Amino acid sequence: MPSKSAVVTVDEIRKHASADSLWLVVDNKVWDMTEFAPEHPGGTSILLRYAGKDATKPYNEIHAPSLISETLSPSKLKGTLDQSSVDPEWTKPPPEETKQLQLGKKPPLHTLLNAFDFERVGSETINPKAWAYFSSAATDLITLDANRNAYNRIWFRPRVFRNVRKCDTRTKILGCESSLPLMISPAAMAKVVHPDGEKVLARAAASQGIIQAISTNASYSVTDIVPSAPAGHPFVFQLYVNKDRAKTESLLRIVESLGVKAIFVTVDAHVIGKREADERIKADDSLSPPMSGTKNTDDKKGGGLARTTGAFIDESFEWEDLAWLRRVTKLPLVVKGIQGAADAKMAMRWGVDGIVVSNHGGRSLDTTPASVLVLLELQKNCPEVFDKMEVFVDGGIRRGTDILKALCLGARAVGMGRTFLYALNYGQEGVEHFVDIMRDELETSMRLLGITDLSQCHPGLLNTGDVDHLIPSLEEEHPYAKWRPKAVL
Amino acid sequence: MPSKSAVVTVDEIRKHASADSLWLVVDNKVWDMTEFAPEHPGGTSILLRYAGKDATKPYNEIHAPSLISETLSPSKLKGTLDQSSVDPEWTKPPPEETKQLQLGKKPPLHTLLNAFDFERVGSETINPKAWAYFSSAATDLITLDANRNAYNRIWFRPRVFRNVRKCDTRTKILGCESSLPLMISPAAMAKVVHPDGEKVLARAAASQGIIQAISTNASYSVTDIVPSAPAGHPFVFQLYVNKDRAKTESLLRIVESLGVKAIFVTVDAHVIGKREADERIKADDSLSPPMSGTKNTDDKKGGGLARTTGAFIDESFEWEDLAWLRRVTKLPLVVKGIQGAADAKMAMRWGVDGIVVSNHGGRSLDTTPASVLVLLELQKNCPEVFDKMEVFVDGGIRRGTDILKALCLGARAVGMGRTFLYALNYGQEGVEHFVDIMRDELETSMRLLGITDLSQCHPGLLNTGDVDHLIPSLEEEHPYAKWRPKAVL
Amino acid sequence: MPSKSAVVTVDEIRKHASADSLWLVVDNKVWDMTEFAPEHPGGTSILLRYAGKDATKPYNEIHAPSLISETLSPSKLKGTLDQSSVDPEWTKPPPEETKQLQLGKKPPLHTLLNAFDFERVGSETINPKAWAYFSSAATDLITLDANRNAYNRIWFRPRVFRNVRKCDTRTKILGCESSLPLMISPAAMAKVVHPDGEKVLARAAASQGIIQAISTNASYSVTDIVPSAPAGHPFVFQLYVNKDRAKTESLLRIVESLGVKAIFVTVDAHVIGKREADERIKADDSLSPPMSGTKNTDDKKGGGLARTTGAFIDESFEWEDLAWLRRVTKLPLVVKGIQGAADAKMAMRWGVDGIVVSNHGGRSLDTTPASVLVLLELQKNCPEVFDKMEVFVDGGIRRGTDILKALCLGARAVGMGRTFLYALNYGQEGVEHFVDIMRDELETSMRLLGITDLSQCHPGLLNTGDVDHLIPSLEEEHPYAKWRPKAVL
Amino acid sequence: MPSKSAVVTVDEIRKHASADSLWLVVDNKVWDMTEFAPEHPGGTSILLRYAGKDATKPYNEIHAPSLISETLSPSKLKGTLDQSSVDPEWTKPPPEETKQLQLGKKPPLHTLLNAFDFERVGSETINPKAWAYFSSAATDLITLDANRNAYNRIWFRPRVFRNVRKCDTRTKILGCESSLPLMISPAAMAKVVHPDGEKVLARAAASQGIIQAISTNASYSVTDIVPSAPAGHPFVFQLYVNKDRAKTESLLRIVESLGVKAIFVTVDAHVIGKREADERIKADDSLSPPMSGTKNTDDKKGGGLARTTGAFIDESFEWEDLAWLRRVTKLPLVVKGIQGAADAKMAMRWGVDGIVVSNHGGRSLDTTPASVLVLLELQKNCPEVFDKMEVFVDGGIRRGTDILKALCLGARAVGMGRTFLYALNYGQEGVEHFVDIMRDELETSMRLLGITDLSQCHPGLLNTGDVDHLIPSLEEEHPYAKWRPKAVL
Repeated sequence: MPSKSAVVTVDEIRKHASADSLWLVVDNKVWDMTEFAPEHPGGTSILLRYAGKDATKPYNEIHAPSLISETLSPSKLKGTLDQSSVDPEWTKPPPEETKQLQLGKKPPLHTLLNAFDFERVGSETINPKAWAYFSSAATDLITLDANRNAYNRIWFRPRVFRNVRKCDTRTKILGCESSLPLMISPAAMAKVVHPDGEKVLARAAASQGIIQAISTNASYSVTDIVPSAPAGHPFVFQLYVNKDRAKTESLLRIVESLGVKAIFVTVDAHVIGKREADERIKADDSLSPPMSGTKNTDDKKGGGLARTTGAFIDESFEWEDLAWLRRVTKLPLVVKGIQGAADAKMAMRWGVDGIVVSNHGGRSLDTTPASVLVLLELQKNCPEVFDKMEVFVDGGIRRGTDILKALCLGARAVGMGRTFLYALNYGQEGVEHFVDIMRDELETSMRLLGITDLSQCHPGLLNTGDVDHLIPSLEEEHPYAKWRPKAVL
Repeated sequence: MPSKSAVVTVDEIRKHASADSLWLVVDNKVWDMTEFAPEHPGGTSILLRYAGKDATKPYNEIHAPSLISETLSPSKLKGTLDQSSVDPEWTKPPPEETKQLQLGKKPPLHTLLNAFDFERVGSETINPKAWAYFSSAATDLITLDANRNAYNRIWFRPRVFRNVRKCDTRTKILGCESSLPLMISPAAMAKVVHPDGEKVLARAAASQGIIQAISTNASYSVTDIVPSAPAGHPFVFQLYVNKDRAKTESLLRIVESLGVKAIFVTVDAHVIGKREADERIKADDSLSPPMSGTKNTDDKKGGGLARTTGAFIDESFEWEDLAWLRRVTKLPLVVKGIQGAADAKMAMRWGVDGIVVSNHGGRSLDTTPASVLVLLELQKNCPEVFDKMEVFVDGGIRRGTDILKALCLGARAVGMGRTFLYALNYGQEGVEHFVDIMRDELETSMRLLGITDLSQCHPGLLNTGDVDHLIPSLEEEHPYAKWRPKAVL
Repeated sequence: MPSKSAVVTVDEIRKHASADSLWLVVDNKVWDMTEFAPEHPGGTSILLRYAGKDATKPYNEIHAPSLISETLSPSKLKGTLDQSSVDPEWTKPPPEETKQLQLGKKPPLHTLLNAFDFERVGSETINPKAWAYFSSAATDLITLDANRNAYNRIWFRPRVFRNVRKCDTRTKILGCESSLPLMISPAAMAKVVHPDGEKVLARAAASQGIIQAISTNASYSVTDIVPSAPAGHPFVFQLYVNKDRAKTESLLRIVESLGVKAIFVTVDAHVIGKREADERIKADDSLSPPMSGTKNTDDKKGGGLARTTGAFIDESFEWEDLAWLRRVTKLPLVVKGIQGAADAKMAMRWGVDGIVVSNHGGRSLDTTPASVLVLLELQKNCPEVFDKMEVFVDGGIRRGTDILKALCLGARAVGMGRTFLYALNYGQEGVEHFVDIMRDELETSMRLLGITDLSQCHPGLLNTGDVDHLIPSLEEEHPYAKWRPKAVL
Repeated sequence: MPSKSAVVTVDEIRKHASADSLWLVVDNKVWDMTEFAPEHPGGTSILLRYAGKDATKPYNEIHAPSLISETLSPSKLKGTLDQSSVDPEWTKPPPEETKQLQLGKKPPLHTLLNAFDFERVGSETINPKAWAYFSSAATDLITLDANRNAYNRIWFRPRVFRNVRKCDTRTKILGCESSLPLMISPAAMAKVVHPDGEKVLARAAASQGIIQAISTNASYSVTDIVPSAPAGHPFVFQLYVNKDRAKTESLLRIVESLGVKAIFVTVDAHVIGKREADERIKADDSLSPPMSGTKNTDDKKGGGLARTTGAFIDESFEWEDLAWLRRVTKLPLVVKGIQGAADAKMAMRWGVDGIVVSNHGGRSLDTTPASVLVLLELQKNCPEVFDKMEVFVDGGIRRGTDILKALCLGARAVGMGRTFLYALNYGQEGVEHFVDIMRDELETSMRLLGITDLSQCHPGLLNTGDVDHLIPSLEEEHPYAKWRPKAVL
């Protein structure tokens, strides 16, 4: 058995190609996955497909570089690959990986006029597995659709005949200047769309003067991403708390050392929602049938990328743990994933610096309310939260008019996630072009609404009559909410 | 004329192949159907097609084995088939019966991710006549659709940032433990989908720790089904009361002797709804034209399988008859088919042990309200019923989120019917896989809603603003309900 | 110039084949249409197409036999056709008339299960011009659709567990017994569907024990239709009041002499609605271009069959004229075409015997409310009308459930029009089969609703929550109804 | 360098065919566009395509003749074209301009029965670029659709049984008689549809006795259009205020001298909405790629025709400027583009003579409310405006019933824009035919509603229950409108 600093030949590795002894190579490191394989959130069979082989490419497509060392004990590292032993067979990709992006099919960037154009092009040209991961949402996509459609059911009440020559879209986000009330939401796996992934988003954010939120699951580490932008350009960091809290603490020390401005801690994804488009890609894979005679226990919970990347998240993390978090970082804290007035008030009581009203882009629990309607719920039941904290919102935003509506309902800024990944499909120029589009749409909408800076936004500029019946009262005022079941066990 | 214990040759039988003298062989018994034929709920022509022939196969596809002897007087039994007289012509199936299930077309079980997948596969691979029977519903399918869509219009109010590491889906149903708040609804004809029919459902229910409701119209008798599961596994029995009450009494004695835990007596199907997909299969059958010169009186009422199997049901059975039923069985009684607050209160007054809020899967009266909205009506008008009786609900449930919503509105458990038949299409493994899916969906939904056991369910976790205007007040408070017509006859 | 009793040869007739002198032969009578042609509601060009020819066939397809003599002065009758002068050219049909009904394509009657089946078959096999006339409705078909869909938005509140062995669908209509609360609505042109037209409907109505309303515009005269049924079978007569009141008075004398039981006077079609499907058939007719050099003044108002048949109607007929009508007939009077509470109360004040809530099947003014919603408006604003008069309703009824809902809202009976014409497509047997279907649907629905005779219908059996917001208050309580414009001319 | 009165040869012009020196010929005048090109609202590349060439044809398709001299300083006029220098190459059109209207494909005028027919024919036969300009609306077309559909959700409450023999559709608009309560809305670019453009509309308006509103951006100057109608026929003039107020003042002097009756000053298009169909035509134009190496700054804001024609509009024009406007013209003033009660009251306070409730046909800000719902908002919140000013409305009107509803809600008259341009596709006869259609529809609707002149219109003839929840209260009564953001910059 080789020592951890040993070099291992491809012939040796090839011997460990079964469930009984399962080795993989990732980034030239040789790992023993035999014990881990049955617990792999993405299922055992994908590991078996690469057993005794180099899995660097598929691993990097969907995992952060550090995940493997965070997940496996150091004893599982068998050594580094003996480069001199590599033969042609070793470097041959498996047949299903030869499908290439048909980048030549993309229409010229200047013909893309809006967010939907980027989505359409993305659906046709992005790697199907990645597309399934990005575009999918929980089960029947009802919240996904509602996020979008709710904006279309909120109407403006424009004021006309006003001097709108000047128009100022600037704001401040947690003390940092932003040229637009628009952030890049944290998202994983940008690398599948563009080889430089989140680093490109960072460069474009800096050139456009907007703020990027970096995901714990980003395909590059925060240490790579932050320096991509000019020194001093502000970033925020999205945090999933690790079951091993020590790992989170050391991650936060790195984040702070990079000058990141705030922590967005996600609280609505303690378990990963059932995203069937993502899981179907795996389930339909005729190249990885369950081992004959063995019951494939992966099947019931699917094995899409989402569940793969979410396995380390601490599902016991709760409000009381904010005390610990406050202790281990002095950065401003924003709680991401608030879906109603009760938890917004909870956040206010805990004294956090902000909240993100979010349902994870419809990816967590289906039939949770459209996020913009939650803003309305806060205006109805606890408008004081908007004065005590900065409130952000994401989910369903595609137009400048959407941004404007969210701001009229009290949001300081909005986040967009998927569309930035689709814009990344055209590189930095694509992301910048997309921000230009959103800026033009927001400016045009402000002027046509009769306002010239964002402090003039307020609910009276909107007519919410089409959705008011969907806005709940506080739970304690709910007419049918008094009944409680008796415990039966 | 042969005596009842006589053996009868195929040559003799073949002489009785017309409306004037119409004999059929079923399970080697020879029956004279001449008098019965005009009353056959499935129409005369289907009997004429098999007149003078062996009808065992088509009979068993859609009838319980005991139905024929329950229906016909013993004098109609002409004897048993003389096996020695059988010739090749006799055993040749009629041409239309050669269509076989194309089982080879079914996709691998592990690629089925949700209830809709099972439905889609079923629609493509189950015998068309059986599919028409299972999937059909009353007339314009409005209640069928509403059952489903109402769940999509009830929104969650999730609470986030909670410790949801553990999650317990267990409950008790009428005193029996169940690993899930999910029952297998009673359904007829399972045999068409799988040769072992309801017996397979029983085995899967036992292995998964859930409860099956056995239908009076099951394709196997309760005596066959109960012993399929390990001793002690709980069952309930769905009862249609026979026009001949003595038959019902003797059936109940059998059911009790098998250790069944409760009787679910159906009260919403005194007459069978008009299910056109089912009837159309018959009406379009070019192989059974009405006899020339004879007016086919079947046509107006159709002759689908539903009306065939429902002919024995006592349509005069009413609340007062509960006294009789209480007398003839000591088992807990559940009234199945409640569709509003008035009858829920009626059931409470009669002191039954439970009710099933149900519109028979949209198969009885079209434009009756979605069953989950009836739960809301009970919460609004008579929430005390949830404390006095166990309340169950079926109709439209396809997702773990649906189960969770029903429980938040007071249901102890839900029933699913059609989907279990579609899962049976893959045998016991298919049914178990399907239960695994529902369990995973329910657990994921509970955690994302912020709860960890079922006693934490309550209406305040839902936002019903989208459907509240559809929930009626008590009839006596109805604004336009005071007017009454004068009798005109 | 020939005397009125003269015989006229085909050669003579052929000389009058232009706009300057335009003769036509109808039923062997020769008419001079020169003066009438520019006023012909169906347009001049159709007359020019038959100028100097025999127009009996196209005339009879769409006009009542007596219309021509009611419309033209006796001086325009030029004589009768000289049969001996007829040559082969004379009898040759114009090319466009050779299109025949493809009766062979009709599926067997017993495969038709509901009203929609008859409609579908009709759309495929009825003469396109007649289909356009029957099926069309005003402009954008919004009221046509609403008539139908409103029934689907009214929900039942079934009562279960009741003795429903017996079920009685009989009622009385204006003192006459009817086996069903269903009438055959008055409709023109039945002859295009079946050569015996309304006479077949009469025979089927009699054999089924229901009442037919005979239209003023029927393709047979009331003198032909009434005797088609056994003596004593009740009929009612639908009246359009003629601009020449004397003609109406003499028509009423005939109607009374035939033993007809009541007059339904239509008040919602003083002018004919714009039915574009009907008009399009004419507008697209490449065989009848406008005369070159002549501006075709027909175009703007279309020239469909509807406007052709409605030209004689007195558009000045108003409530005050009821005094005249009461004077000229002693039969019970029913006002047909009420569309709101104000006019229902008006009818009550005028002491008529009944009203038909109707929007002419969506054929008059588009975006008038669905007729069943008008029943709700009466229940809300003036329920006393249901006690003072018999209230009927038509429009959108296709199902037994629809009939039951209308009766729960106070209707004594409903009318169906189009579907009876589509059933006539199968002759008397077709009409009887269709009535059987409606009877079965009504009985099944009554039992599943928990009632056994029609006197048990009342609004409390319905849930109207989905449409209550569409029901207006009395006009005087309308929130925005106080404003009135100033006269500007 | 040639003097301004110089003649310039085509050889000289051809030398100025780049971004460094860019000359164009329009109407035989030679202009130096080098400095202007980067500011051209339609983008630089379209100018480069015609650099050194004759751009008369494409210029005139979309610009008013006077725009070029209003926009460029006189110093940019290089002289007039030397006609003697013209060679065959000069007159050859660029390849993309050879696409011709397929006029032969238009169906005969008399087969067009309604406004939708004209739209359909227009979509198939009008120049695609012009079609994109006319038919497009802002971003997701939500307001465009709402404008239309809101009419379909407002229901009539017809009164029947009335004398409707006579029917009078006349009214007065700002003191001028009109045979219909219908105006031709101001619209640009009519010339693309018909060579005589707005002059044809003027002739048809006069022959039909209705009023045309002439656009500042009309493809003919008001000096050409007014004299097309017989002397004395009334016109109104739609005004965009120029950034150079002196130009507007001189334009108003011309307008007054022509006897125009009123000024409609547009206040809802200070910036041009994002009309993507229009911009897409440009973005997809493979013939005008951005210059290589140069960043095409046009792209983000698109370069459709709308933004081209709107560049001169003064976006600082505000209520206070009405004092100036009152000073420079004595004509009645109507403010066009009011979208809510607050601005309607503002207009009343400023004492203008009328308002046009309008959202620019859905072309300015998407998700502004349907214009007919704004009429309802005024009836709810400030019905006094209807007595103090004449209120007009446009947007979504396609039917006589729509006109009638707008009048019942207080409008004096309605405007139609797009449909008149589509009717112009058939020349003067087409426009007249279309007015005939609208007149017939309005008369028929009035009679079927039970009224005979327009002073009988009032809100009580409508049922607005389907849209009442969409009508906002005054902003100060808005339940969630108290919250205001703090300034953050």
